[in-house]
Amino acid sequence: MYKKFTSADADALRAVVGADRLFVGGEISEDYSHDELGGVSRMPDALVFVLSTEEVAAIMKYAYRENIPVTVRGSGTGLVGSAVPVEGGILMVTSQMNKILELDEDNLTVTVQPGVLLMELAAYVEERDFFYPPDPGEKSATIGGNISTNAGGMRAVKYGVTRDYVRALTAVLPNGEVVELGSKVVKNSSGYSMKDLLIGSEGTLAIITEAVLKLLPLPKASVSLLVPFKDMKSAIESVPKIIRSKVIPTAIEYMSRDTILFSESYLGKKFPDTKNDAYILLTFDGNTDEQVERDMRTVADLCLDELGALDAYIVDTEERKKSVWNARGAFLEAIKASTTEMDECDVVVPRSKVDEFIKFTHRIAEDEKIRIPSFGHAGDGNLHVYICRDALDEKSWKETLARCFDRMYAKAEELGGLVSGEHGIGYAKKGYMQHQYGETQIALMRGIKAAFDDKNILNPGKICY
Amino acid sequence: MYKKFTSADADALRAVVGADRLFVGGEISEDYSHDELGGVSRMPDALVFVLSTEEVAAIMKYAYRENIPVTVRGSGTGLVGSAVPVEGGILMVTSQMNKILELDEDNLTVTVQPGVLLMELAAYVEERDFFYPPDPGEKSATIGGNISTNAGGMRAVKYGVTRDYVRALTAVLPNGEVVELGSKVVKNSSGYSMKDLLIGSEGTLAIITEAVLKLLPLPKASVSLLVPFKDMKSAIESVPKIIRSKVIPTAIEYMSRDTILFSESYLGKKFPDTKNDAYILLTFDGNTDEQVERDMRTVADLCLDELGALDAYIVDTEERKKSVWNARGAFLEAIKASTTEMDECDVVVPRSKVDEFIKFTHRIAEDEKIRIPSFGHAGDGNLHVYICRDALDEKSWKETLARCFDRMYAKAEELGGLVSGEHGIGYAKKGYMQHQYGETQIALMRGIKAAFDDKNILNPGKICY
Repeated sequence: MYKKFTSADADALRAVVGADRLFVGGEISEDYSHDELGGVSRMPDALVFVLSTEEVAAIMKYAYRENIPVTVRGSGTGLVGSAVPVEGGILMVTSQMNKILELDEDNLTVTVQPGVLLMELAAYVEERDFFYPPDPGEKSATIGGNISTNAGGMRAVKYGVTRDYVRALTAVLPNGEVVELGSKVVKNSSGYSMKDLLIGSEGTLAIITEAVLKLLPLPKASVSLLVPFKDMKSAIESVPKIIRSKVIPTAIEYMSRDTILFSESYLGKKFPDTKNDAYILLTFDGNTDEQVERDMRTVADLCLDELGALDAYIVDTEERKKSVWNARGAFLEAIKASTTEMDECDVVVPRSKVDEFIKFTHRIAEDEKIRIPSFGHAGDGNLHVYICRDALDEKSWKETLARCFDRMYAKAEELGGLVSGEHGIGYAKKGYMQHQYGETQIALMRGIKAAFDDKNILNPGKICY
Repeated sequence: MYKKFTSADADALRAVVGADRLFVGGEISEDYSHDELGGVSRMPDALVFVLSTEEVAAIMKYAYRENIPVTVRGSGTGLVGSAVPVEGGILMVTSQMNKILELDEDNLTVTVQPGVLLMELAAYVEERDFFYPPDPGEKSATIGGNISTNAGGMRAVKYGVTRDYVRALTAVLPNGEVVELGSKVVKNSSGYSMKDLLIGSEGTLAIITEAVLKLLPLPKASVSLLVPFKDMKSAIESVPKIIRSKVIPTAIEYMSRDTILFSESYLGKKFPDTKNDAYILLTFDGNTDEQVERDMRTVADLCLDELGALDAYIVDTEERKKSVWNARGAFLEAIKASTTEMDECDVVVPRSKVDEFIKFTHRIAEDEKIRIPSFGHAGDGNLHVYICRDALDEKSWKETLARCFDRMYAKAEELGGLVSGEHGIGYAKKGYMQHQYGETQIALMRGIKAAFDDKNILNPGKICY
């Protein structure tokens, strides 16, 4: 169906980007055949590092005419195969498009290229006393990748997700045409929101080459609170009650003793407390110490007096903050290091159903006699559940994994949840999403895809195909 | 192209909703032929009041099969003809689908039917100590209408717009199929966001029959500040400087002496101060009196000490709040009452360009020798500019209006703005939007429209057609 990539195609791409930024065949590192989790892999025929909207447009114009598939990749930190060129062709990497183009203090926006890393953006704006609230765990992901998956992160409870901070996008369509979607403005009721359609579309509709992001003033104070409970049930059940108290924490994470121990041994660093089975970790931010202090005390008192918490550790020194949040940041890597192979489930359920879902994963673990550690965002209902292969042989692993996923996604749907809270659908989860949404919605998605990409050359094989 | 509506079609609709909720031909009040501004009008062939998703689905199934156009209407408070059945056919009114279905305190959501009025929703949630932040000026608009135009309102500076508060939609497609888009969850990275595509699509893609909206805890304190300046330039120039001070007010409105006087005479009530040419009106909200007091004082001091304000009136008593905000709420009606006919321009520009745009409208008023009063949301760059007909004859009025609009929309584009900040595109503004977006983007919008509505029967003649 697609044209086979030839040396003439390589010459054409070289004419756009020069010899230094094009790699073909055996010159390409195996790293580019998969993402962070590596569940699906395929080598691209050509690897190209782009520097500008114009280069992206020229490459797409060529690929469109020649019918060559193109897949875009940022840092490759994805977990569902979105950036894997499953049909081969051209892999276009945006990591060198990494300039911060403008900070507009009158309009509270920052304009960036897609290859800027989340941690670079955060550092840049915080140095200037501004705040980019989305805070996904993977700080070395690119902003382009964050927008493409509508990445969420820990602060979603209070601040929302990436979508809420994208004001405008410059994007290259599959046929090489360039569009400007949205604007620096705060409000927009001017036709269909194609910007919102691109956000979360995982590089299947257009290639983002510039983004205008909304900023806030940097909150001047923050404090965390680590609250141990006797078991996960009590820990998780406390969350809706905290929300009902009408204090809105910035983040509410949950973690089990097991996960913390993995992290301690992975980092070689002590966590403040590991005596108890389950913990929630909350953060509060605001503009004065008194305000965050008051919010924190309200929640600490509620947890201790009414919700059965065993203690409440205030995490306010730099050292303690580091020890707690570094451990939290290392959970994914730590679990990965604890097993031979793993796969993940990133469902999101209403926050009142988190407890029920976690208990359900424990039941599956017992039924299947495997380990299923989890952690996640109790405050927003987004769970990260890891199915560990450990000593299973290849065949049992595949079968076990399929059974676990089938049960988990069915349960999430039953609880009013969705397949992915923040990691996306990509290649790995499309069957589950298509099953949940049903034919009518998938047909609509395919209609939208066809309106943007009539030749289906941009990131084929993902989401709705 | 469409089928002519017959008495057999009326019988078919009557079989769905009964005789009480169907009106045809001469039974239909002229009110249903136009919206609030009345720039475009056409009588529908049939007027039907729906009560449920099932009724909407049954009607759409029939209309799809028979190729009859259907236009949806809420309260009819629109200003750009979105709810006018420009091709005739069926006008479907959702105002009787006005139940609040669920308040979910664990997930901080409220589930409503589309015909609930904004003021009813606000009262319902505030009585229960919750807060629905979007606050468009027209409180008798329906929530369905607010979602369909992505309505903004006064609190957008701090809280964003309707889009930011819609978690899930139930919608009926043009062929009568029912889809559930989104979920009660906080995060969602599960495929293309069709919910976001429907928001702001002005009833051209699907009919919203239920919505799950996000709530916040009700802020416990609020105060307003009325700040007079010697002229509009100084007033508007103060706004980016206030934003730079890193206090985020809930609202920043601007108003001229003229507009206030219209409102005084329209309401027959005194405004606290009318000595000065230009005013900004700010609101601050938060959880404690001290916090809003502190924010208010920071801004008052900045205005008085550095930005040339002539005074700063604290609006904290109920009486003063009423006098100021009732006047603000009456501006549209007051200007309407001051002239024979008018049309409006609802552009949004980056907030640093508001001053330049307003000065430009003054220049047009001089050039054309007409009145062009304006007011609007200085804090978010969304302006409401009214071109008044006064004594012009029909021909001069049409020509003058066209020249004014051409110049204004060209200027908005030049300043990096967009055609509509919150009123939508509908019928009246589609030429300007299509001109700004250009062929490529309009072709994409038409592709999306076709994916939802292959027979183009739902609200035809709007936005991209």
